[in-house]
Amino acid sequence: MSLDVVVLRLREEQIELLLERRERPPFEGSLQLPALRIDEERDRDLETALDRLLAEWSLGDSYREQVCSLGSRERDPRGWSTTLVYLCLVPPTTDLARGQWYPLQSLPALRLAFDHIQLVARALERLRVKSRYSTLPVHLLGEEFTLSELQRAYEIILQTPMNTAAFRKRIHRAEILCDTGRKRTGKQRPAILYRIEAPSCVLFDQVMNGAEG
Amino acid sequence: MSLDVVVLRLREEQIELLLERRERPPFEGSLQLPALRIDEERDRDLETALDRLLAEWSLGDSYREQVCSLGSRERDPRGWSTTLVYLCLVPPTTDLARGQWYPLQSLPALRLAFDHIQLVARALERLRVKSRYSTLPVHLLGEEFTLSELQRAYEIILQTPMNTAAFRKRIHRAEILCDTGRKRTGKQRPAILYRIEAPSCVLFDQVMNGAEG
Repeated sequence: MSLDVVVLRLREEQIELLLERRERPPFEGSLQLPALRIDEERDRDLETALDRLLAEWSLGDSYREQVCSLGSRERDPRGWSTTLVYLCLVPPTTDLARGQWYPLQSLPALRLAFDHIQLVARALERLRVKSRYSTLPVHLLGEEFTLSELQRAYEIILQTPMNTAAFRKRIHRAEILCDTGRKRTGKQRPAILYRIEAPSCVLFDQVMNGAEG
Repeated sequence: MSLDVVVLRLREEQIELLLERRERPPFEGSLQLPALRIDEERDRDLETALDRLLAEWSLGDSYREQVCSLGSRERDPRGWSTTLVYLCLVPPTTDLARGQWYPLQSLPALRLAFDHIQLVARALERLRVKSRYSTLPVHLLGEEFTLSELQRAYEIILQTPMNTAAFRKRIHRAEILCDTGRKRTGKQRPAILYRIEAPSCVLFDQVMNGAEG
């Protein structure tokens, strides 16, 4: 039983995926997801195993959720194997202890180990579907962010422009934001900086649907 | 690695859970969920293992989805164990090959094996949360049903009355229903009978929120 984590960040208008080069067979030289085999002596439960994996990658306090389990005779040439897939979202500036970031567009050209391309697809589907009805994308932003930056994160994930007024209404009704009292200044007019009130994921009372509001 | 399935039906305004008496230790005499241990010789993947389990219970063609995996040192007194939890929804009239139906209200008084009470809680949470934004509850109805029956299913799951006009608008916009051309007659005035067009679960463009619409 193993854990595989699809770690995503959003940087310069692109979603990027964390991968590392695999150094032994099978699939030597291919890229793989952060992974761990459950150690029944060491790991009390799945959560502590995941904590151990994320700590190895210095991603200890990032947002994570279970996506699915995949198990079959074929997914590992060495025999029947089951993996538990997690989605992990990190801020743009996360320092890397291991691996490298790859933009999602580059994925088709990369050689991924095992069935990791499918695991990535499942995690991305979760991100996209859940972003329609929840505050999940907030975990891709830095500690402080403007509403425009949050809207842009939704637009990049959902691949559609959104109605600003409707977007702001939904975000405010979800009651997850806390006004920091500071403003982002720069080329645009100053915009309020927010941080998250609660580190969880809140369901909207209206589904995000793009420009039609 | 095992599979545990939380099988639910909706009958006479109550959600009921399928359980069977466990005949060997540990937890001999307690009630348990339909379960199966993965057989690496027989089961090609998790889906075929689930098919085998549901076939043993004559629930082969019912709606199912993965809920979560739970694994720990404590959940089975015999040692580290991992289970993959599925939610399975069946029509009210499903014939039972094994086990017995128990109303959810009776659960606190029952003695459940292992951590099965937690597995039930996780599956129920999935049903309740997902019913807010999708057509999931349709799988608890028979082959043909009226819109009032469908609304009642939502109200029982979400434990709140709903605005009928808003409810019907959302259901119609989800485009899952097919008019059978027949009507339910009885004490009330005749109502159109529908069946499902697609056997899947469709996301609403507006979240179901109870009476406030």
